[in-house]
Amino acid sequence: MYGFMGKILRVDLSHKSIKEEPLPEKEARNYLGGNGLATWYLFNELPKGIDPLGPDNKIIYMSGPLTGTMSPSSGRFSAVTKSPLTGLWGSANSGGRWGLDLKKSGYDGLIIEGVSTDPVYLVIDDGECSLIDAQHLWGLNVRETTRLIKEEHGSKFNVSCIGVAGEKLVKYAAVMNDVHRALGRCGFGAVMGSKNLKGIAVKGSQKIRVADKQAFGEAAKQARNFISESLLKMTLEVYGTDMVLDLVNVKGGLPTRNWQLGSCDYAENINGPAINESILTGRKACFACPIACGRLTEVKSGKYKCKGEGPEYETVGAFGPMCDISNLEAIAFANNLCNDYGLDTISTGSTIAFAMECYEKGILTTENLDGIKLDFGNEDAMIEMVHKIAHRDGVGDLLSQGTKAVSAKLGQNSQHFAMHVKGLELPAYDCRATKMTGLGFATANRGGDHITAYIQGPTYMDIPFLIVEESMLEDPAVENPEETKVVKDLEDALTVFDAVGACKFMGMALMAEDIVAIIAGATGWEFDVDEFRKGGERIYNLARCFNVREGARRIDDTLPTRLTQEPLRDGPAEGLVVDLEPLLDAYYQYRGWDQNTGIPKAEKLNEVGLAAIVNQLGVE
Amino acid sequence: MYGFMGKILRVDLSHKSIKEEPLPEKEARNYLGGNGLATWYLFNELPKGIDPLGPDNKIIYMSGPLTGTMSPSSGRFSAVTKSPLTGLWGSANSGGRWGLDLKKSGYDGLIIEGVSTDPVYLVIDDGECSLIDAQHLWGLNVRETTRLIKEEHGSKFNVSCIGVAGEKLVKYAAVMNDVHRALGRCGFGAVMGSKNLKGIAVKGSQKIRVADKQAFGEAAKQARNFISESLLKMTLEVYGTDMVLDLVNVKGGLPTRNWQLGSCDYAENINGPAINESILTGRKACFACPIACGRLTEVKSGKYKCKGEGPEYETVGAFGPMCDISNLEAIAFANNLCNDYGLDTISTGSTIAFAMECYEKGILTTENLDGIKLDFGNEDAMIEMVHKIAHRDGVGDLLSQGTKAVSAKLGQNSQHFAMHVKGLELPAYDCRATKMTGLGFATANRGGDHITAYIQGPTYMDIPFLIVEESMLEDPAVENPEETKVVKDLEDALTVFDAVGACKFMGMALMAEDIVAIIAGATGWEFDVDEFRKGGERIYNLARCFNVREGARRIDDTLPTRLTQEPLRDGPAEGLVVDLEPLLDAYYQYRGWDQNTGIPKAEKLNEVGLAAIVNQLGVE
Repeated sequence: MYGFMGKILRVDLSHKSIKEEPLPEKEARNYLGGNGLATWYLFNELPKGIDPLGPDNKIIYMSGPLTGTMSPSSGRFSAVTKSPLTGLWGSANSGGRWGLDLKKSGYDGLIIEGVSTDPVYLVIDDGECSLIDAQHLWGLNVRETTRLIKEEHGSKFNVSCIGVAGEKLVKYAAVMNDVHRALGRCGFGAVMGSKNLKGIAVKGSQKIRVADKQAFGEAAKQARNFISESLLKMTLEVYGTDMVLDLVNVKGGLPTRNWQLGSCDYAENINGPAINESILTGRKACFACPIACGRLTEVKSGKYKCKGEGPEYETVGAFGPMCDISNLEAIAFANNLCNDYGLDTISTGSTIAFAMECYEKGILTTENLDGIKLDFGNEDAMIEMVHKIAHRDGVGDLLSQGTKAVSAKLGQNSQHFAMHVKGLELPAYDCRATKMTGLGFATANRGGDHITAYIQGPTYMDIPFLIVEESMLEDPAVENPEETKVVKDLEDALTVFDAVGACKFMGMALMAEDIVAIIAGATGWEFDVDEFRKGGERIYNLARCFNVREGARRIDDTLPTRLTQEPLRDGPAEGLVVDLEPLLDAYYQYRGWDQNTGIPKAEKLNEVGLAAIVNQLGVE
Repeated sequence: MYGFMGKILRVDLSHKSIKEEPLPEKEARNYLGGNGLATWYLFNELPKGIDPLGPDNKIIYMSGPLTGTMSPSSGRFSAVTKSPLTGLWGSANSGGRWGLDLKKSGYDGLIIEGVSTDPVYLVIDDGECSLIDAQHLWGLNVRETTRLIKEEHGSKFNVSCIGVAGEKLVKYAAVMNDVHRALGRCGFGAVMGSKNLKGIAVKGSQKIRVADKQAFGEAAKQARNFISESLLKMTLEVYGTDMVLDLVNVKGGLPTRNWQLGSCDYAENINGPAINESILTGRKACFACPIACGRLTEVKSGKYKCKGEGPEYETVGAFGPMCDISNLEAIAFANNLCNDYGLDTISTGSTIAFAMECYEKGILTTENLDGIKLDFGNEDAMIEMVHKIAHRDGVGDLLSQGTKAVSAKLGQNSQHFAMHVKGLELPAYDCRATKMTGLGFATANRGGDHITAYIQGPTYMDIPFLIVEESMLEDPAVENPEETKVVKDLEDALTVFDAVGACKFMGMALMAEDIVAIIAGATGWEFDVDEFRKGGERIYNLARCFNVREGARRIDDTLPTRLTQEPLRDGPAEGLVVDLEPLLDAYYQYRGWDQNTGIPKAEKLNEVGLAAIVNQLGVE
């Protein structure tokens, strides 16, 4: 099978068994790989209602047919699980080189199941697989774990692992790979920790074969050149993802003081150019990426001395304006801490910002907070909280549960400003300034997420192949129900990028025709734009069905009441709220989902090739 | 005729006669309007070899079929003349609202000919035209001239005029409109000054009719939405054109110390974000433009106190790194001086940078320089030079002739670093870091220019409709002759934007199909992508033929020897030169021009509908 290695590795930690299975070819064709194929496994193998941190949960790693090929920006892989943060479909995607190394070791994907009695790590050495005792690694963070595994097995191994936060089952712990890249969202680190699995080291030398070398090579080269020449590349390379900060701030959509305000007056201290001028030491690309948005950074002296990669925009947003912190060095330090502990920076920063507002309002006091004055803008308190959360020390134990759980514990008067959807903390785009972002947050299968629809706040990145068809951005004060079709189309299209192993930034520079030609060349499939859209819709609906089976309904597709009821207090979007329900009405109509329940209709499931699920879910 | 007003105004200053002529419909169809139609007039009405500053030269203003319509970014108009700086086809294009106001006054274009014995200005009041004595305005600069004309005739008049520099016949004087917008390059101000014409005030209320309201409206709306959502808009709106500075600097293509170096270490003092943080007071759009790249700025105190619009990137490049000046306030002050005197900022800054290197090398001394120590980095000396050039005071008389003429006077040892092509000073992109920019500079019909091919230095802006076909950007160290077709295609395509009255930034966000639909909807012409390309090629060849008739040959399509023989000393492009001749060979082949002479072949001229010229030029 071209574009695939043809094998899946199943690792049962309870029985310490490791076995190979053939890649299910028909399903690979239907769900494309990556996120898509992994979700097919998850849907079929996970019974309803299992405990995300219990033995029945699984982590399914999956690369896609483009992962590791010369298609541009194709160093990515996905993972799915049942999220301990949302109790629903959990999904994450990461770059670097790990996905490529997994694939070259001979496997398209890994299914991790069961629970080990003792800490172990998995080594995959070019097809040779073993579980190794990890007692000596337990209690170590990501850098040290990675260093020791490489020291033990060789520097050519690439490590995906958890730090202390995952071991401690912090609900938003991350799994890190290539030291600084993350399966960040949805708590994969906690699931891995619950399985006593410290990490996975991979090395491989096997070749990835494509179906039509020449056609693939030409399509990939054209795409690469196109991206190389794009404004997207130019700006991302020079400024990194944090270039977005100014764009968002100027539109009044930069969540500040836990979303009490939509702009801050210190953007120039923390924006992309500020990183360039103060802490940048180099730029770094993922495998085969012509963009190189990664930042190598160093704070050379002072109490925030640190060295690493990032911070990305979302990290700056969460530890910066959300916490009302204007010191880039403190933000970079918090970012490095999170990467080493294995913590999702968005959820960590956002949960701390929520706690800061609770403190401001007297809902939390210094007594609850281990004596810490958790004021907005208090850098040292913020950093102290990161340590406490990772170790679940004192109040960190409470905050390690995530904003939704903390707010449930603190009671109703904190729920208005608990900034999450379905339990996943929101990224840094105030959707009162951009309504479609709000709809995207509300409907994303993994909870409050910006890269599912990638309607990135007020920036509304241009995805040519969609906007040629749909192009309806209007005054943010006017909500246009027809525009919700853009959200659907983007969700479907970008799902394909995760499935094939390509970076979503590609989708901002390429036409559907371009990516379709690459996929066809790599796999030998007859694959056209119609297939592309239909495939994305199929996968998207399958993940939705996972959530429906777990009990998710329209009522869960919502936003914090701060966004729907409290008019924004400042900036260009002053006075606006998100009037979500009419948008949901229209969106469900485009989706073919029931208006009352939000459950996909049988007609739609049949249409996208999910007929088998119709009976299982009992939908009409 | 839809999209046009149907009338041209011919103003003979020698005989003080003003008469209307019908728009030549067939030629409008062939040359589209704007720059294209104006060049047709120029080619047909200007005998070979006339003196650019004598009575036989003409200035032909022309709007295009989209000027003033609701097509996005369509507030532009063009002008052509024989340039006193190059002795060849002179062309410029400006934004703001003046072009729209001219068109609404009832005229698609203006032909200014002859010389007035006394200073006059032209008033076009909704179809009523008169020449008015301008003695009281002579000696005044642009702001005051504009203010007085509006005071006299009403604030609804919009003024295009010259300042002192144009009156004094500074070879690179500009004609300003909307106070801060310029017909900047090629010395239009000098030509206007030579005619004793101080300015042109227009006011109008006539309607611009489009052929198919619905089709036009839909195409324009789609294009507008597309641009509104583009990364191009986001970044240009937030950072202005000076966003390019970092992108160029990081590639080592930012001309520093008169192109002795390709990067500077003070980019953060003068880049787009620096403008935002220090002097920006607002953003401003030209008519119908969703981008708003214009900057309202103010230096609020100190010796460089000033208020106005800009500086644009090119201005920062010329008065900043080229002169090795890192003080944004000094640059803004010089920019404001130029706008008020009516001086092209690129040629002014570049000529001063050239003089600085002459001073550094002892070719000019304080004796030649009226006692001024014209060191690189000397802000006050730079500003003093702007004053002197505008008034042709002392050494300013020499420098007012432009780099080429100054260098000819100073002798051979200055010619290596006289940074012009065909007499037009080069904009701020060191083409040793990007070879195709060099080819674009060498071949542009108006001389050393970046927006003819708009291969903007290392940034290489993405123009989707071209790059879909041609996508060959390689390592800057490798010159790929096939890539020269991109230069040709861009020159042809962007020529159309000038012709129809649309901003070239549109071409970076739209597909050919999009702009073609707008043009067809406005004019009622059957107009497709093939027509689009052919029309651009026709106009481009016509301008080339104008130059050929004046004696321009392949030998004139060249670059300063600094770029072809002196390896760049720093940055990522260190060690590189432009190996121009193989690129020219390939480019001429794509162009269908003779390899030895650079003259268009008869076959090509016949193919693009310029058969009538074949005999006139006597080409084979």
